[in-house]
Amino acid sequence: MPKTNVPDVVIRRLPLYLRCLTYMAERGHKVVSSAELAKWVGVSSAQIRKDLSFFGEFGKQGWGYEVSYLRDQLQRILQADRDWFIALVGAGALGHALINYRTFERWHFHIAAVFDNDPQKVGTPLGHLLVQPMEEMRHTIQERNIQIGILAIPAEHAQQVAEQLVECGVRAILNYAPINLSLPPGIRVAHIDPVSSLQSMTFYL
Amino acid sequence: MPKTNVPDVVIRRLPLYLRCLTYMAERGHKVVSSAELAKWVGVSSAQIRKDLSFFGEFGKQGWGYEVSYLRDQLQRILQADRDWFIALVGAGALGHALINYRTFERWHFHIAAVFDNDPQKVGTPLGHLLVQPMEEMRHTIQERNIQIGILAIPAEHAQQVAEQLVECGVRAILNYAPINLSLPPGIRVAHIDPVSSLQSMTFYL
Repeated sequence: MPKTNVPDVVIRRLPLYLRCLTYMAERGHKVVSSAELAKWVGVSSAQIRKDLSFFGEFGKQGWGYEVSYLRDQLQRILQADRDWFIALVGAGALGHALINYRTFERWHFHIAAVFDNDPQKVGTPLGHLLVQPMEEMRHTIQERNIQIGILAIPAEHAQQVAEQLVECGVRAILNYAPINLSLPPGIRVAHIDPVSSLQSMTFYL
Repeated sequence: MPKTNVPDVVIRRLPLYLRCLTYMAERGHKVVSSAELAKWVGVSSAQIRKDLSFFGEFGKQGWGYEVSYLRDQLQRILQADRDWFIALVGAGALGHALINYRTFERWHFHIAAVFDNDPQKVGTPLGHLLVQPMEEMRHTIQERNIQIGILAIPAEHAQQVAEQLVECGVRAILNYAPINLSLPPGIRVAHIDPVSSLQSMTFYL
């Protein structure tokens, strides 16, 4: 199927379905109804059926989905069944937290290089890696088959470093800096933005 | 207006509009078109007009929005013009990164207490605070007018600690643990989930 036909909002829900199905499979569940999946993810069961229908027929009417089959299909669709290598930029407190975040490895995301522009940090260990200077970015990204970048740096440097990552061959960026990035078409950006998340809750308080 | 009439997906976009308007106001911009706002946030201008129409008439046809007026209105709607006090649970690497994340303070979010169940951490400093034992949660949350909790703890403890926070009076939780929380109706939960964000990008790579 052409990937561009699927709305991005659907793609953003698939990882939640995948997480739920993986959890269920690990606990020996064989079948799940769209109602159960819906309750877990916090959408309607109609939404789940509609989302999955972009990719084929996965369930049986009145019976539900086979947990491990649907999990495998979602893994394949999201390319979550292969290894991805990541360049982390920023060896500060956030970089430290990210290198120690074991959930990345569990889902085949490997931080394969760390860069920082602070000469005090370059050469020091961060987790299992040594912090490298920004100048080594191009060579390391190509050598280690890195396709994803994580920005854990202040907002004022984020745009410039993002452009640098893209020039080195990175095609997807997870941006922790509180600024919107403007990048060429075809480059994917996801934003981790705790303030926006907090504000969308304080609306209701 | 009754808050429940506005779709949650609209509420989640308002902080992005607010950030853009604040940025523009700081740089002396007086007026912004819905097309400019749309480009920044990454939605269509029709979407912006529709989102804002839930809350009133903010723009003039063919002229655009008055930047500082719309910013003030969004601040009021999101209650982003008042101070919020936060209890952080988890004094590990992530807790350390969060306490040093200056963007929280800038938007009136104040981490006012840190808790951890590790006796080695209790009593040690984390940023401007001392780590407190879990037993002090109830008293501190009430005393410091805390309404928001941040979970920076492993997945296996998240559900139990979330329930504890809610019992102590917390009404909104920002959850960094990779697990879905099941909490009473009326309690808001937002999930910071970098793996889901990465997976929704690897779909396209």
